[in-house]
Amino acid sequence: MQAFQFRNPTHIVFGEGKASQAGELVKQYGGKTVLLVYGSGSVKKSGLYDSVVKQLGEIGASVHELPGIEPNPRLTTVNRGIDICRTNGVDFILAIGGGSVIDAAKAVAAGVPYEGDVWDFCTGKAVIQDALPLGTILTLAATGSEMNGNSVITNWEQNLKRSFGSPHTYPVFSILDPTLTYSVPANQTVYGSVDIMSHVFEQYFSLTENTPLQERFCESILQTVVENVEPALANPSDAAARSNLMWSGTMALNGGLISVGMANDWASHMIEHEVSAVYDIPHGAGLAIIFPNWMKYVYQERIDRFVQYAVRVWGVDPTGKSDDEIALAGIQATRDFFNRIGAPSSLAYYEIGEDKLDRMAEEAVRYGVIGSFKRLDKADVRAILQLSL
Amino acid sequence: MQAFQFRNPTHIVFGEGKASQAGELVKQYGGKTVLLVYGSGSVKKSGLYDSVVKQLGEIGASVHELPGIEPNPRLTTVNRGIDICRTNGVDFILAIGGGSVIDAAKAVAAGVPYEGDVWDFCTGKAVIQDALPLGTILTLAATGSEMNGNSVITNWEQNLKRSFGSPHTYPVFSILDPTLTYSVPANQTVYGSVDIMSHVFEQYFSLTENTPLQERFCESILQTVVENVEPALANPSDAAARSNLMWSGTMALNGGLISVGMANDWASHMIEHEVSAVYDIPHGAGLAIIFPNWMKYVYQERIDRFVQYAVRVWGVDPTGKSDDEIALAGIQATRDFFNRIGAPSSLAYYEIGEDKLDRMAEEAVRYGVIGSFKRLDKADVRAILQLSL
Repeated sequence: MQAFQFRNPTHIVFGEGKASQAGELVKQYGGKTVLLVYGSGSVKKSGLYDSVVKQLGEIGASVHELPGIEPNPRLTTVNRGIDICRTNGVDFILAIGGGSVIDAAKAVAAGVPYEGDVWDFCTGKAVIQDALPLGTILTLAATGSEMNGNSVITNWEQNLKRSFGSPHTYPVFSILDPTLTYSVPANQTVYGSVDIMSHVFEQYFSLTENTPLQERFCESILQTVVENVEPALANPSDAAARSNLMWSGTMALNGGLISVGMANDWASHMIEHEVSAVYDIPHGAGLAIIFPNWMKYVYQERIDRFVQYAVRVWGVDPTGKSDDEIALAGIQATRDFFNRIGAPSSLAYYEIGEDKLDRMAEEAVRYGVIGSFKRLDKADVRAILQLSL
Repeated sequence: MQAFQFRNPTHIVFGEGKASQAGELVKQYGGKTVLLVYGSGSVKKSGLYDSVVKQLGEIGASVHELPGIEPNPRLTTVNRGIDICRTNGVDFILAIGGGSVIDAAKAVAAGVPYEGDVWDFCTGKAVIQDALPLGTILTLAATGSEMNGNSVITNWEQNLKRSFGSPHTYPVFSILDPTLTYSVPANQTVYGSVDIMSHVFEQYFSLTENTPLQERFCESILQTVVENVEPALANPSDAAARSNLMWSGTMALNGGLISVGMANDWASHMIEHEVSAVYDIPHGAGLAIIFPNWMKYVYQERIDRFVQYAVRVWGVDPTGKSDDEIALAGIQATRDFFNRIGAPSSLAYYEIGEDKLDRMAEEAVRYGVIGSFKRLDKADVRAILQLSL
């Protein structure tokens, strides 16, 4: 285990019907002039939007809006939000949606008090020093953005998808109401679940020695997701399955609690970001395609971790098998599971061919080699993308 | 899973040598006039005390002291600390020690701004509205007090041991340096480890349905403690074992993260508190005596959880066994483990006989029946104590 620091102050309010506490929570955390950030309008159809606006009226808050956040939220939209905040003296941001909406809201929150271009936080040109307070009402189990300081933004003009993270952009509160996810379409349930598992993979496949508790926390989440995706798909209103997926998503990436003191990898995310930045495919779908190929490409770097993964998470019987066979059986079980729940297994699904692989590989290593489990250069990334065709 | 709220703002700084950051952390969190709280003086022998005093000098803080915190910290000592704070305008409390020292420091922190008797927080007569900021340097893996708002105080005059918990008494920071636990005596390592496991038991043995992730988190901690106690006893400077025990202790009771949405029990703790309040025995030793007897007394309330415990934590082979046999094998494995690491198994070890069992049983249910896995009345508590003789 390595030295680490951990602090996660987000106030979680979890349970059926808890969105009715949005107004009082905004008030508790000092919101008077609020920017509502949301996506395509499903929150209007569900009645959630009307309920929140009513609650904000009841606490006497004035409300401004940034609707239309894209699935891969765009810098142009973030900048529009920053302008609205500055023009209207917004002092609190309330995001209603999934990870994309929350990520966009974080970028707005950090951008308002910053005089330069908010993209500077994604390129490393500047570090976030301050941000508006942010609350969230989560409507999709996926990114964990509801309990961390991370955000991923797409600069569509430059075909770049980049992330930032800061202690200043942790939500002050997040409302987790599993019933809000009952209406999530099947494919989004699938992609969200793949995203959760992928967040765990990025932390679990680590070269750091002596982290037995962290490894087991990771395996706990993986097993829980695996058990609950199919029930949620079979019955979208399965309260148990939806609750378990939602809490698993939050725990998978809540400021790194499950992997404190471990080197993380994140190469697969960086590779996927290049694919979505060019082809605008769903993040979770891209991860389902890429991750098993990353696994095959790197597993021999530390085969014991992949053996442990196969045995503990997938119940692979090790009897009479070599480590190689056990590890590969675990990777195959991952691919089989993704297939079974309906996630795509190749870039061909999105009619993506070889033509831009070089460009994506080059962009992925723009700041140097990526990953820590195995350090990947351009040729490695190209090879993993090639395996994913 | 039930509805829940969770918020844990404690800033953890974990790693070898991190006590050297105490001064800068006190400064970061605004401490200028500091009360140092510590125990019997082992922190002086180790040089930790001198280092901290030097660091506080370097940040220009003035220092006052509350030494001599007892293993079961006493109300009279807490009141002495409150007086020192008021007389000297203390604005920050720094606890250096294990759970008892931190618990005492929390009571002082909450008592300073309160006009009444700090014991009111333990009896429920008053609720904490404010507290001085508190930092900790942990020297024993055990109670989790370094990352929660709980405290247990003994009123020796009345032979009462009572607890309080508040969002205001979470430490603002806690330094977790595993090397500080290398010099912990074997029996304290054992009792601390039993305490960690007991905290998990209180949360894991629950009637709440549909909490698979929480159950696995609990099992993760139990397995990690079981694997690491004996290596730590065999080689007190085993960095891996000490790190794993320390982080397990913090995770076992960090504001209830591992059991969000679950009914907790805590009856065994309440029973043990009555024993220590009368006989002043180590808390972890009392738990080692009582917990397996509580298990035997209650397991039929929900045998599936005890079956799961036996199989997943202790690797009991269920083949050809009845649920009853599996559950009892898990309980026996618990007792065997406690015996193996040198924890006592009966009250007779402390020459405690029948004479005060009635009084302790009566006191345990002073506010009504206790526990939630099985609601225990006076006769039940008496029976569990009888089994523990």
